[in-house]
Amino acid sequence: MKRLENKLVRFMKRPNGFPNQDTWKLDHENINDLSNGEIIIQNLYISIDPAMRGWMNKARSYIKPVEIGDVMRAGSVGKVVYSKNKLFKEGNFVSGWGGVQKYCRTDGKGFVEINTKKNDLPIFLSTLGMTGLTAYFGILEVAKVKKGETVLISAAAGSVGSIAGQIAKINGCRVIGIAGGKKKCNYVINELGFDGCIDYKNESVSRSIFKQCPDGVDVYFDNVGGNILDSALTFINRNARVVICGAISQYNNSDVLGPKNYLSILVNRAKMMGMVVFDYKDRYTNAIEEMKVWIEKGNLKSNEDIHFGLDNFYNVFQKLFNGNKLGKLILKV
Amino acid sequence: MKRLENKLVRFMKRPNGFPNQDTWKLDHENINDLSNGEIIIQNLYISIDPAMRGWMNKARSYIKPVEIGDVMRAGSVGKVVYSKNKLFKEGNFVSGWGGVQKYCRTDGKGFVEINTKKNDLPIFLSTLGMTGLTAYFGILEVAKVKKGETVLISAAAGSVGSIAGQIAKINGCRVIGIAGGKKKCNYVINELGFDGCIDYKNESVSRSIFKQCPDGVDVYFDNVGGNILDSALTFINRNARVVICGAISQYNNSDVLGPKNYLSILVNRAKMMGMVVFDYKDRYTNAIEEMKVWIEKGNLKSNEDIHFGLDNFYNVFQKLFNGNKLGKLILKV
Repeated sequence: MKRLENKLVRFMKRPNGFPNQDTWKLDHENINDLSNGEIIIQNLYISIDPAMRGWMNKARSYIKPVEIGDVMRAGSVGKVVYSKNKLFKEGNFVSGWGGVQKYCRTDGKGFVEINTKKNDLPIFLSTLGMTGLTAYFGILEVAKVKKGETVLISAAAGSVGSIAGQIAKINGCRVIGIAGGKKKCNYVINELGFDGCIDYKNESVSRSIFKQCPDGVDVYFDNVGGNILDSALTFINRNARVVICGAISQYNNSDVLGPKNYLSILVNRAKMMGMVVFDYKDRYTNAIEEMKVWIEKGNLKSNEDIHFGLDNFYNVFQKLFNGNKLGKLILKV
Repeated sequence: MKRLENKLVRFMKRPNGFPNQDTWKLDHENINDLSNGEIIIQNLYISIDPAMRGWMNKARSYIKPVEIGDVMRAGSVGKVVYSKNKLFKEGNFVSGWGGVQKYCRTDGKGFVEINTKKNDLPIFLSTLGMTGLTAYFGILEVAKVKKGETVLISAAAGSVGSIAGQIAKINGCRVIGIAGGKKKCNYVINELGFDGCIDYKNESVSRSIFKQCPDGVDVYFDNVGGNILDSALTFINRNARVVICGAISQYNNSDVLGPKNYLSILVNRAKMMGMVVFDYKDRYTNAIEEMKVWIEKGNLKSNEDIHFGLDNFYNVFQKLFNGNKLGKLILKV
């Protein structure tokens, strides 16, 4: 193989609070040779996720923290450009943990082939990737929504929330979203088909939940934490399920705001449940097939917010937290 | 019937924070006559419970708040002294919501006969009453403990905690308690047979959990909330169950301290679950029979902390919160 010049975003410093420019460094390195069993993947699209913030903390979690000096961890889809591994054919598309870089040299572990055309690739990082699978298993396996239930979803215009809500709709629920700003709320109602959406930037969330969920909340799917979680807990019904999928309002706080209202769980015999999508690995394929059908039928809409260039990584990362996005954030390499 | 002079503790003012002397008033009233269907119960023992604090708040809960001017709500056991109700025979013992008073005039709804001798009565407010039933269903039906699991229990010397831990032991678990002070910890280990007990007044709770639960915590049964809940959440295992049975450290706070560490639930795919014993009403009888067997075999020890006189109600109530008790608080009328 000819020598490849890799461009990569290196993790340099554990942030305290919100990451800054010094957290990462744009770097270059040469890839010269491949050992037996290795492949080189040219990353085409990189997934930008709130979970990245958690991976930077040196804490016991569901996955090891990224080490200082390593390429920043990220999901990606790309093309196999060199292969010394019988399982991967040059020219084929794969998805996996490619990292925030142009080329990924790997033994292929954790990568799977995806059978698609090049212009369909981004959806394998959104609805047909970890994002969509999190929504799918969160709504169907953790919350176990039932027809006719009221489902409340925070960050409803976001990558996971938008899909979670649509899947709850497909399963016969009444679905109310919570999102920031008129534009997002309109999108959630008019494009995604939610039954309502609360604009937390311009409404009292508690008063609006009370109005929009007159029969209370059977399932609350939380992506944000903080005060919105507390407002939701006020209105849960008996035997409600609260799925803790994320807590984007708290990821950069060294002092996390816990749910003051957690005794609502006691009073209502409710459950607050955590989930990590990796636990459902064995069932990814079936879930993806089912979601593909929903997409084809027009019942499930995917929305990717695609930005360009590795140089742009820090700007795009910030969009995860400043609310300035619609759908799944993706970096095109 | 002859005229009875009832002595009662009347709820006078919703407290803000910790109740004070003005919260209740000791009062007298005459009971003159009985309508058909009514009975008069002479309360012999009155149950003093942390839940009383919750019943005073005007908030949506699992039970209606006590109304201003009403007799303070309490569980009780007593003797039927007059009956115009075919279901209740004079001279028999009953348990139910008799209130903090000498005599209870009632249509008998919610009262059940108990088949016992007079000197066994207090146990029907502790291990064989709501307290023990809460522990029983909390450990067996909510937490669903499995043999070999590590179970951590706060307020382990308290009424519910002490029984919960013993039931977990009977079911083959390794049980560690948390209690305040050497005396209580010794009692929990030596009398109740827990495998260990952490003295939160004299030890770092986190460091001690780490030491005493080297395999992590599979079930955390929480009666206290606050910082101890946060410490416990740090050490929960994957698929752990956290039973929220109470939060005595928070009941008198207008600003509840929520569990900052709640994202441990996400990371560990754990569940935080609420419970209210009333949901298991249909199964009380069987549970009581099973616990009676454990008591007879010497596997389950009941401990009642009995105080005397309705005049003493406020003092005894305070003991619920100042840690100055061992076992179930009961007021003997």
